[in-house]
Amino acid sequence: MLIKHLVIIGVGLIGGSLARRLRQEKVVQRITGVGRGKANLEKAVELGVIDAWTHSVSEAISDADMVVICVPMGAYATVFQGMANTLAEHAVVTDAGSTKQYAIDLAEKHLPKSAQFVAGHPIAGTEHSGVEASFSSLYQDHYCLITPTSSNSDKAVSAVKDMWKHTGAKVICMPPDEHDLLLASVSHLPHLAAYALVNAVRKSALDAKQPFQFAAGGFRDFTRIASSSPQMWCDIAQSNQAALLQKMDALIAEMQAMRQNIADGNVQALYDDFTQAKQARDLWLAEHGEKH
Amino acid sequence: MLIKHLVIIGVGLIGGSLARRLRQEKVVQRITGVGRGKANLEKAVELGVIDAWTHSVSEAISDADMVVICVPMGAYATVFQGMANTLAEHAVVTDAGSTKQYAIDLAEKHLPKSAQFVAGHPIAGTEHSGVEASFSSLYQDHYCLITPTSSNSDKAVSAVKDMWKHTGAKVICMPPDEHDLLLASVSHLPHLAAYALVNAVRKSALDAKQPFQFAAGGFRDFTRIASSSPQMWCDIAQSNQAALLQKMDALIAEMQAMRQNIADGNVQALYDDFTQAKQARDLWLAEHGEKH
Repeated sequence: MLIKHLVIIGVGLIGGSLARRLRQEKVVQRITGVGRGKANLEKAVELGVIDAWTHSVSEAISDADMVVICVPMGAYATVFQGMANTLAEHAVVTDAGSTKQYAIDLAEKHLPKSAQFVAGHPIAGTEHSGVEASFSSLYQDHYCLITPTSSNSDKAVSAVKDMWKHTGAKVICMPPDEHDLLLASVSHLPHLAAYALVNAVRKSALDAKQPFQFAAGGFRDFTRIASSSPQMWCDIAQSNQAALLQKMDALIAEMQAMRQNIADGNVQALYDDFTQAKQARDLWLAEHGEKH
Repeated sequence: MLIKHLVIIGVGLIGGSLARRLRQEKVVQRITGVGRGKANLEKAVELGVIDAWTHSVSEAISDADMVVICVPMGAYATVFQGMANTLAEHAVVTDAGSTKQYAIDLAEKHLPKSAQFVAGHPIAGTEHSGVEASFSSLYQDHYCLITPTSSNSDKAVSAVKDMWKHTGAKVICMPPDEHDLLLASVSHLPHLAAYALVNAVRKSALDAKQPFQFAAGGFRDFTRIASSSPQMWCDIAQSNQAALLQKMDALIAEMQAMRQNIADGNVQALYDDFTQAKQARDLWLAEHGEKH
């Protein structure tokens, strides 16, 4: 595999780490970065992450073989619109966003019928952002989920899979709706629950001054993700609406059942619930937790 | 202050750390430990944490000046029953449990009318247990909440406050019901929510195989407390029922409002919610989070 001209739209932690690794693996000839922040793009050239940069999506992609969208999902519509007129026939487009059906719908709306958009989602990240935070082993041993549709050619799907395999990621294909439900469960729902919990506690200041003052370590860990970017989570809540509503209903039902067991003094049911949760969590930690 | 004979019921992390510190501060003459596990009690003597031990609560406390209950709350009734006949007139009894009105009610039920039970709650702990995990600085700079009632003498309340001040804790008095609501918010509710979340995700295996497989670091932190002891949390759920029901209703309402905002595409409301949670959480972390 050799990508002659790779275009990375959004040269931050995600896009920068992909570029670094593909370059290290010698599977790319030339990389162009697209973004809004001049300082970050210049830094990316200085660091050797990209060869050149531009602010213009349409200009950058006109002779691209592979285009990877690594911007927040709220910017997807603008990016696809910028591609519509200059995307080459043979070019393959992919992305790294957290929800997939939404991305596929936007690509269908804005890109030419012949365009090959193969949606993807590498499950990796750190709390840092920007090209200076990027590193070539970010994806090593992490999952990368690819969600092809019937509109995708085998060749385009293979190109995207091969690219991610070169990053050291474990590449898995699944339908977009399955991906969106799965991520709603294990990622989006926990984030929303953390926000809801902090807000519930914040409002409890009415019956006891400064409730946070007495919070301990468990509270810190539980709510760490409530310090995430509100804008990013608004984007995700919008772009994965259907799956998230389903999962929020499941969590609300779970909490209502627990509430009823507490109200009824149904200790055995509580004990079983807590035990099953603990076992599932301990098993996950033993099998998958260490590497995160 | 000098405690001539201190009795610690339950010589684990909590009781052992208290004994170590009081001994270090030279404010106690003699310490007797009470417990069920012979090996742990012998270890406590070997480590110099206690001077002697017995399995019998009634025997141990017969000439005690201060008695500190450091057992799981599910064992309180048995402990109070064991005290009823041999507690000295001048003795002061306190505890270290997570809910306070429940402890006060049990003491009133089982102890003689003249007995002075001053309930307390040092907010400290580690993930380890047993006397070998105990250390003298466990309480240093942590809060210790004392919840006196109108039945308590000033002398008894002062004795308990003074004892905890010698551990380096920041001692604060508040009414038992306020304590229970406060802890329901910042400690009990997060634990129950973590259990509910893991169970909701576990059950989502129906629509996607092995959902946990794709969980990342945020999930690990958010659910760490779901690996806590199911028995301990059953005890707490029972012993703080009223406050917990109120707080669970608040969290469920918060999640339902968020769900509605997602369903309605009310992005501004979501953004404001997320931002307020993030600000409250970041502020807490800056002011209080580091030391936990």
